[in-house]
Amino acid sequence: MGYTAAPLERLIEEFSKFKGIGAKNATRMAYQVMSMTDEEAQKLAEAIQGAHTRIHRCRICQNYTEADVCPICSSAKRDDSVICVVEKPRDVQVFERTREYNGLYHVLHGLMDPINGVTAEHICVKELLARLHGDKVKEVIMAMNPTVEGEATAMYLAKLIKPLGIKTTRLAQGLPVGGNLEYVDENTLYRALSDRAEL
Amino acid sequence: MGYTAAPLERLIEEFSKFKGIGAKNATRMAYQVMSMTDEEAQKLAEAIQGAHTRIHRCRICQNYTEADVCPICSSAKRDDSVICVVEKPRDVQVFERTREYNGLYHVLHGLMDPINGVTAEHICVKELLARLHGDKVKEVIMAMNPTVEGEATAMYLAKLIKPLGIKTTRLAQGLPVGGNLEYVDENTLYRALSDRAEL
Repeated sequence: MGYTAAPLERLIEEFSKFKGIGAKNATRMAYQVMSMTDEEAQKLAEAIQGAHTRIHRCRICQNYTEADVCPICSSAKRDDSVICVVEKPRDVQVFERTREYNGLYHVLHGLMDPINGVTAEHICVKELLARLHGDKVKEVIMAMNPTVEGEATAMYLAKLIKPLGIKTTRLAQGLPVGGNLEYVDENTLYRALSDRAEL
Repeated sequence: MGYTAAPLERLIEEFSKFKGIGAKNATRMAYQVMSMTDEEAQKLAEAIQGAHTRIHRCRICQNYTEADVCPICSSAKRDDSVICVVEKPRDVQVFERTREYNGLYHVLHGLMDPINGVTAEHICVKELLARLHGDKVKEVIMAMNPTVEGEATAMYLAKLIKPLGIKTTRLAQGLPVGGNLEYVDENTLYRALSDRAEL
């Protein structure tokens, strides 16, 4: 090449490592960094370092937090008899945005995927089981994505949790609200049909 | 909100400032930073700072470079009788990728846009004119985007450069190679027709 300065080339490479950021976007971003003021570039670099050094996992739910225990786990207003199990921290945000759920969460930081060598020990399963001792928790909601790995993980967890006498549920599957029958795939339609509810 | 740790929120905000990076992508990127090792996050932050502090504009063509004069301007292999004028540093990369052009470049760092108060003094016009003294340069190619601002800037520069006895050209406009007549807009088709070439 020779026509792109090396530090710029390196920055493009760093940005390209992000999933969902293609070569074109990475290049565009790098050039935007170049056109920032020194102060703006500094702020961006510090935000990256700050997020990385100041945030760690909540001791209880494993979600990202600055404190030892996250605001949700330490809130007195949340219903601590229900735990919603999700794959990743971002999923917590998605649920919170609905403003409908008032229980606690548990972040697995991954899904079981035995074919690729990801077993229960690689995700936060034992941290979840540790929270189920005593009789505070009445229900555990499996809220993983309805994929092969998500279903497998939900089944595995349900098998461990049910014997403890705790209700184990999972998110409903069916037609998306506002969706169109024509555009729904067969598996979803099958599920919508077999899980039909009385009016 | 309250459910996203503050440093993470700030990082999402920083990423959202990039053009072409929406709220969703910014969030995804911030969470990816979280799942990096300390070393990886450090490398990313340093790449940003490094690109910003170690790169500046070439004294001659105004493209980004680490040196005083960029590798293209200082290369003995390039034809220094032709200068291709582009809007931004990224455009130089685009031309270099074709491997067809062997002349020099000049980066304007913007286009004239009088309505929004961007005049010739705000972009690198005087640096271009300074390069045209003497009789080394035989041709200046206007290679701005074919937009209103691009055309206006090209016209303005041509008016300044022609009296110096230097050939002033611009990129051809017409059908995109491999394109389809059906999907070409009227202006492009009009241009393709009026600029038609003999076979």
